[in-house]
Amino acid sequence: MKKHNFSAGPCILPQDVFQKASEAILNFNNLDLSLIEISHRSKDFIAVMEQAQQLALEHLGLEGKGYKILFLQGGASMQFINVPFNLMKNKAGYLNTGTWASKAIKEAKFVGEVVELASSKDSNFNYIPKGYDVPTDLDYIHFTTNNTIFGTQVKEFPEANCPLVCDMSSDIFSRQMDFSKFDIIYAGAQKNMGPAGATLVAVKESVLGKTDRAIPSMLDYRVHAEKDSMFNTPPVFAVYVSMLTLQWLKDLGGVAAIEKKNQAKAELLYNEIDRNPLFKGFAVKEDRSSMNATFNLVDQAHKDSFDALAKEAGLNGINGHRSVGGYRASLYNALPIESVQALVDAMQELERKA
Amino acid sequence: MKKHNFSAGPCILPQDVFQKASEAILNFNNLDLSLIEISHRSKDFIAVMEQAQQLALEHLGLEGKGYKILFLQGGASMQFINVPFNLMKNKAGYLNTGTWASKAIKEAKFVGEVVELASSKDSNFNYIPKGYDVPTDLDYIHFTTNNTIFGTQVKEFPEANCPLVCDMSSDIFSRQMDFSKFDIIYAGAQKNMGPAGATLVAVKESVLGKTDRAIPSMLDYRVHAEKDSMFNTPPVFAVYVSMLTLQWLKDLGGVAAIEKKNQAKAELLYNEIDRNPLFKGFAVKEDRSSMNATFNLVDQAHKDSFDALAKEAGLNGINGHRSVGGYRASLYNALPIESVQALVDAMQELERKA
Ligand SMILES: Cc1ncc(COP(=O)(O)O)c(C=O)c1O
Ligand SMILES: Cc1ncc(COP(=O)(O)O)c(C=O)c1O
Ligand SMILES: [Mg+2]
Ligand SMILES: [Mg+2]
Ligand SMILES: [Mg+2]
Ligand SMILES: [Mg+2]
Repeated sequence: MKKHNFSAGPCILPQDVFQKASEAILNFNNLDLSLIEISHRSKDFIAVMEQAQQLALEHLGLEGKGYKILFLQGGASMQFINVPFNLMKNKAGYLNTGTWASKAIKEAKFVGEVVELASSKDSNFNYIPKGYDVPTDLDYIHFTTNNTIFGTQVKEFPEANCPLVCDMSSDIFSRQMDFSKFDIIYAGAQKNMGPAGATLVAVKESVLGKTDRAIPSMLDYRVHAEKDSMFNTPPVFAVYVSMLTLQWLKDLGGVAAIEKKNQAKAELLYNEIDRNPLFKGFAVKEDRSSMNATFNLVDQAHKDSFDALAKEAGLNGINGHRSVGGYRASLYNALPIESVQALVDAMQELERKA
Repeated sequence: MKKHNFSAGPCILPQDVFQKASEAILNFNNLDLSLIEISHRSKDFIAVMEQAQQLALEHLGLEGKGYKILFLQGGASMQFINVPFNLMKNKAGYLNTGTWASKAIKEAKFVGEVVELASSKDSNFNYIPKGYDVPTDLDYIHFTTNNTIFGTQVKEFPEANCPLVCDMSSDIFSRQMDFSKFDIIYAGAQKNMGPAGATLVAVKESVLGKTDRAIPSMLDYRVHAEKDSMFNTPPVFAVYVSMLTLQWLKDLGGVAAIEKKNQAKAELLYNEIDRNPLFKGFAVKEDRSSMNATFNLVDQAHKDSFDALAKEAGLNGINGHRSVGGYRASLYNALPIESVQALVDAMQELERKA
């Protein structure tokens, strides 16, 4: 029996994508060769790369707006350092909304000065700071839209006179937005897009090349843009599986369609968290993430019973991150609502038994 | 019919590895979950990572010698910049034996001074320079053991009073050597080890931490060593497939056993190149690579006929790199000698027909 997979990353993908990926390992495009043994410069793989880039551009509504889609290696963590290398002249602003934002800040400090615009560290990042001042002398501002660990999500962004950069690792392609207000968007594949090993970067080319810094090739977005993400050997398998998932998303109606499904899933779970007297949410309500729901038992005495019920129901990956404790259910695009229902059923079963 | 795959990278892997990789995409370790959807911090994946590291250490004979095996992202190209970031105080020596060595030199210059110890650029890198002087004030010396594009291989290394660093991307695990004379060995997976997307680094920990430089986390070998290659999400699939290939290599007798097979394959092909009046080798004989054989037609008038024969025989990926022209047959570990025989047969068939 296939499990209900709530894993925060890697990764929740459609079953049909697993099937196609599995087949391509044995025989790709009827070439009588494996996907992973063909040259990345073969026309068959170049077509995969181009399609992945085109689909990402479409889903983000960024066609014809001066953006380039890159598929890089190194994870979102690598972009923590690539972003300041490419954009920082003197000083950048970061909104500190959690572990990943804090790590992005740490890396940016290797390159220049960081102004922390605001932070919710004071209450273990259970909310998104609002109403902070935005200085007018920043080279860029950096956000983490969705805070995977704490289960909060940024829903509004301030006006600013400088480029906006966003780590969307855990909510990219999950909700509609005017993505063209961001100049750089990046996301590790391993939540909503594909397996670990590829990182998507959408970059507005006009913001690049403004610093005097000599940038090592692998860290330079211009190098990767100019070579269409083939400056060196790309992570062929991870790009292919990302392409399949982006195609799956298009076939089911794109970001608009998946947003509705994601809202329904989140509502189902948060309603139960609020209704059920045995559970409480972690993030403040208005900042709740539609991708990662963090919650806990009101009384830890029920932990063993609930864990047993979860196991019985085939619920995988619902333990919370150690910085929050309790539970975290990741509701990424490919998670079916039936899996959320199975979780809600287990919560109600606990209530009946307790 | 499965093709004969001579692709220079990605990649030549054993059929049994493709089979297991394909199955793991659907159901890994009987977890009823895909390999690529489980958490990289699950005990099932941690076991994979540990086994891959252990097998690499064994194959290189580096157990108990102060080395750590890392599996990183970014390809060998990323190590071109990581190496100087980690080791360069003022000045490093590079042997310039080809395209990849030249690229490594270019990146090192972002960090400090590069002394080119010697270069074979004067004759399109068809030989390995020898008898050059080695200055005594270098922070490290960098070699490319096997020059994938030009088909040459370094067989002897100079004595030096500083750390030795080696890009072994295209001949790692292919021949026996005292690997402990190198302080850092790195290799992109996508020739002898696995799919594109993982890079192996074997690093002697005692050479790290000697510069005053503040190193961004993702570029700092100490960070990855301390976190056992789990500082951030590793390229799960590429590490798993690498582990399978390293296990396959162990089962068939390790590097000693594969070296014999590789010698037999290389001999078979080079003998035919030399014997057959229609073909000539590119690299000078004493520096010929056992991994990438570069050769050409004596008379280009035979090109169409030979290409047709090659196609008919199911020979894939034998076109030479544009900097050399002609043909290149990559003879990586997993290429069966039957594939080399098929190539030799096609060369002899051309001779009969011409
Ligand atoms: C929001 C966010 N940013 C960055 C990262 C780090 O990604 P990676 O492991 O690919 O470096 C994560 C990982 O979960 C994340 O959730
Ligand atoms: C010897 C050598 N070094 C470095 C590279 C670059 O590797 P990557 O594409 O993984 O960056 C290659 C690629 O073929 C190579 O053959
Ligand atoms: Mg977080
Ligand atoms: Mg409640
Ligand atoms: Mg070369
Ligand atoms: Mg000859």
